[in-house]
Amino acid sequence: MSARLPFAIAARDGLARTGILETPRGRIRTPAFMPVGTAASVKAMRPDEVAATGADIVLANTYHLMLRPGAERIARLGGLHRFMRWERPILTDSGGYQVMSLAGLRKLDEAGVTFRSHLDGAQVHLSPERAMEIQLLLGSTVAMVLDECTPFPATHDAARASMELSMRWAERSKAAFGAPEDAFLFGIVQGGTYPDLREASANALKAVGFDGYAVGGLAVGEGQAAMLATLEASVPHLPEARPRYLMGVGKPSDILGAVLRGIDMFDCVLPTRSGRNGQAFTWGGSVNLRNARHAEDPRPLDEASSCPAARDYSRAYLHHLVKAGEILGAVLLTWANLAFYQELMAGIRAAIAAGRLADFAAEAAEREARGDIAPL
Amino acid sequence: MSARLPFAIAARDGLARTGILETPRGRIRTPAFMPVGTAASVKAMRPDEVAATGADIVLANTYHLMLRPGAERIARLGGLHRFMRWERPILTDSGGYQVMSLAGLRKLDEAGVTFRSHLDGAQVHLSPERAMEIQLLLGSTVAMVLDECTPFPATHDAARASMELSMRWAERSKAAFGAPEDAFLFGIVQGGTYPDLREASANALKAVGFDGYAVGGLAVGEGQAAMLATLEASVPHLPEARPRYLMGVGKPSDILGAVLRGIDMFDCVLPTRSGRNGQAFTWGGSVNLRNARHAEDPRPLDEASSCPAARDYSRAYLHHLVKAGEILGAVLLTWANLAFYQELMAGIRAAIAAGRLADFAAEAAEREARGDIAPL
Repeated sequence: MSARLPFAIAARDGLARTGILETPRGRIRTPAFMPVGTAASVKAMRPDEVAATGADIVLANTYHLMLRPGAERIARLGGLHRFMRWERPILTDSGGYQVMSLAGLRKLDEAGVTFRSHLDGAQVHLSPERAMEIQLLLGSTVAMVLDECTPFPATHDAARASMELSMRWAERSKAAFGAPEDAFLFGIVQGGTYPDLREASANALKAVGFDGYAVGGLAVGEGQAAMLATLEASVPHLPEARPRYLMGVGKPSDILGAVLRGIDMFDCVLPTRSGRNGQAFTWGGSVNLRNARHAEDPRPLDEASSCPAARDYSRAYLHHLVKAGEILGAVLLTWANLAFYQELMAGIRAAIAAGRLADFAAEAAEREARGDIAPL
Repeated sequence: MSARLPFAIAARDGLARTGILETPRGRIRTPAFMPVGTAASVKAMRPDEVAATGADIVLANTYHLMLRPGAERIARLGGLHRFMRWERPILTDSGGYQVMSLAGLRKLDEAGVTFRSHLDGAQVHLSPERAMEIQLLLGSTVAMVLDECTPFPATHDAARASMELSMRWAERSKAAFGAPEDAFLFGIVQGGTYPDLREASANALKAVGFDGYAVGGLAVGEGQAAMLATLEASVPHLPEARPRYLMGVGKPSDILGAVLRGIDMFDCVLPTRSGRNGQAFTWGGSVNLRNARHAEDPRPLDEASSCPAARDYSRAYLHHLVKAGEILGAVLLTWANLAFYQELMAGIRAAIAAGRLADFAAEAAEREARGDIAPL
């Protein structure tokens, strides 16, 4: 199994690892951050611009794409890579999470989930088998098993029942997916915040055998401490030689905390969504460009950044664009944020290679605590 | 006067001319199309991207900028060029037209116009003197006199009274503007669709003396035939050696018709606004990407275009982006449209130089009549 998707770990620092995941679509440097391209577009960015920030892989959402434009249509157009002009690896989620958060009138049973599209109310059924079919039609490089994202909070009984359903679906997903030459399948650990359930889930997935392992059901309101504790209860039970992906996470400090606990891959809408809302990520923490303090500030977001959006445009101009609702404001802040996240990941990889990740994390926390540059 | 803003006409073809307008901010190749950067941003485009389409100059709107972020603020930040990171020439309108179309509770008298901001309801006064002060604060390369855009239709009496007010304001504008070293002032011919009033207006402006001359009050509902007839009644009365600018125009066929009648400069929101609405301009006419005929069409908008947005992305993807309301749809179609308009202007300039503008216009009309490529 592991030879299908070579993962070469080049260096370790405590539980953290840095390496290369080799896919037929190109290499993924880990720890990796995957920008979210929900509906076949990393919002406000061209694919060549996303690549230029240093992203090796993007994520796209099966739920959105199955409803519009449809997986069969994308397949007829040559697959998702060609459709969105992104030739590097693409990871797709299974659709399950967004069925729960976006669709109406859901009915979940052993077979799968039936729901109404948030676009036109059409009734749609998603089973493990259909979720695999869709991701194969899309031509995903990395597909995810269909799972139920256990709500938070959940009782131990509810979390166990939900996790066990996800494990049965994981097995069905694997059977339906098969072992295509250029597509790979990750299992997803569930179990809420209960260590015994997380361990049982990890063991159940290992028994099936996947190309990689995700930790799901986090960043749903449990808080950073509970999230990191759940990672500590999950990661040690995952195969050492396979990539580990923490789904939907997170803030820079979440990512650092997770890498320190052995996570290799991340995705999150924060840099893109925040960029559209006037919020920038910097080493000094998040900066709200709507704030009047920026209105006459000729300084850039970060004069040391290698990203033109962060380095060359004044805060005064960014403030104006955001206040005026100009598309360029969303474009520039999305660009700056994606570049910052990739700069963070590059820093993390270099720190692991140098055996100083703990220092790197402490320095990042200290810079964030110092905050933004002082107002003029 | 004419030495202040050198205009070298390199070739003529009938009434059409092609040449170079030399400004301290760089040359403007004429006939020129100026993308509209309403609020200090050509919507959805970075300034370097606008320049790469071939634009030598952009237009910005005094009305919008005086209200937000304010002319004094832009001046404190080093002027509009630095603010929006566009170092080439900028033309600003006087604000008069948009006061009439956007602001509330207008009161116009000999002194100027008092109105309420569409943003916050604040009462604002705009006089010829204040319009010049604002444009000098912005650091405009080319400023426009304050005028009243005569409504259409208007009786001869109403059009004359409006034009005469504009001529008195033009004289006051000139007196207030002075002759700064790196800023230039254009007068604006008014007079509705009445040839005698247009001639009188042109003569009044010539008597004052401006760096260039605009034809205003058109593209306000009079139709293309009346617009072109009004140009024929206006342009012959303007100084041969000075640039002529048709404000707010227009469709590709409008531009061709106006160049054939001696116009050198244009601005219009059509390529940018249409781009945000899913409409693309091509040699085969305008293409509505919302149309279902594009949903599975793998072909680009125009495989012969030099613009990646028009050449490299499938119609199916553009259709999807537009239907899904993705920002990238607005970005790509705006880019394609601005590139098309600049390609049109480059074609016009080359045709004039070759003495075959009439043939070029006939070929363009024929291609547009043939329409878009056939559906698959």
